[in-house]
Amino acid sequence: MALMEISVLPIGTKLPSIGDYIADLVRLLDEEGAIYELTDMGTVIEGEIESLFELAAKLHETPFKKGIMRVVTNIEIDDRRDKKVKLREKVASVRARL
Amino acid sequence: MALMEISVLPIGTKLPSIGDYIADLVRLLDEEGAIYELTDMGTVIEGEIESLFELAAKLHETPFKKGIMRVVTNIEIDDRRDKKVKLREKVASVRARL
Amino acid sequence: MALMEISVLPIGTKLPSIGDYIADLVRLLDEEGAIYELTDMGTVIEGEIESLFELAAKLHETPFKKGIMRVVTNIEIDDRRDKKVKLREKVASVRARL
Amino acid sequence: MALMEISVLPIGTKLPSIGDYIADLVRLLDEEGAIYELTDMGTVIEGEIESLFELAAKLHETPFKKGIMRVVTNIEIDDRRDKKVKLREKVASVRARL
Repeated sequence: MALMEISVLPIGTKLPSIGDYIADLVRLLDEEGAIYELTDMGTVIEGEIESLFELAAKLHETPFKKGIMRVVTNIEIDDRRDKKVKLREKVASVRARL
Repeated sequence: MALMEISVLPIGTKLPSIGDYIADLVRLLDEEGAIYELTDMGTVIEGEIESLFELAAKLHETPFKKGIMRVVTNIEIDDRRDKKVKLREKVASVRARL
Repeated sequence: MALMEISVLPIGTKLPSIGDYIADLVRLLDEEGAIYELTDMGTVIEGEIESLFELAAKLHETPFKKGIMRVVTNIEIDDRRDKKVKLREKVASVRARL
Repeated sequence: MALMEISVLPIGTKLPSIGDYIADLVRLLDEEGAIYELTDMGTVIEGEIESLFELAAKLHETPFKKGIMRVVTNIEIDDRRDKKVKLREKVASVRARL
């Protein structure tokens, strides 16, 4: 299992605020039943690597449905095969070392 | 004010686990009195843009002090000049639209 | 069409050098007939968005085949629907403005 | 010495094209005498780590001077202390392994 952080940025929005577009992403995550955590800089999602890539493709498509003509998407994947990786476990593991 | 997400990745660690290096980063953030939130994929820090860049430089230096010879650091900055940006506000603003 | 930059980072490699793992990625890109450019910080690939996501999934899998147990992959996608995007065009467009 | 890839993205530009803002970044790099390579997804710069952070701060400031109110900047730093790192060397090293 892996963790993926994704941010989907619409370009050419007239206004600096992009919260409406981010809300669309969250709605999609809920519909898909994703296990995720919203942060100020993106969304961290837990899942099998194949389903994470599928979800990334769907999230990336979202702003285009609102008429946006350019989207810049950033994805970071942390994939471990030596142990199960779950949301909030890395944070807990670091906190335990302090 | 701006938000910065930073992840500092030591390369050549023998083991897949890098939690000890991340704990060093958190200790530095506490010493510096930074306003931050630890996520599974990095650390989100709130601050003036100048102090964020200074903090990024210090965080990047941390693993070298433990003998690591290569560090890959990823930084994303979201800087708004039309309004104050504070930690957890973007998440709250998105949640309010759902 | 879109551009994707991808970097695939094996974690826990003992040595700081990861060139052998990067060479595997390049071999895969050649086998797949990808249109790409190797940079010092990653690989920029041109293609339809669906095939870019498929390629990203394959590239991410590569270091695991050499026994690596943890991989951190960074992907940035720039996807425009108002015009065709091709490799080296953005650079040429910027150079033309100078 | 280290390599830094940076992309500076103005948000709220009305139009999808951001080439004029990128041209400003390139002008600044030339004025600063930076050793850099423009790619389709950002700019890769070679230098001492301290000067790279200083340069990043200046580049990030550029779009605000044109009236932009929000800038999202992505930075990746690859810093090796076991050997000198120069632009195009990583690409050459990978190519030599094929």
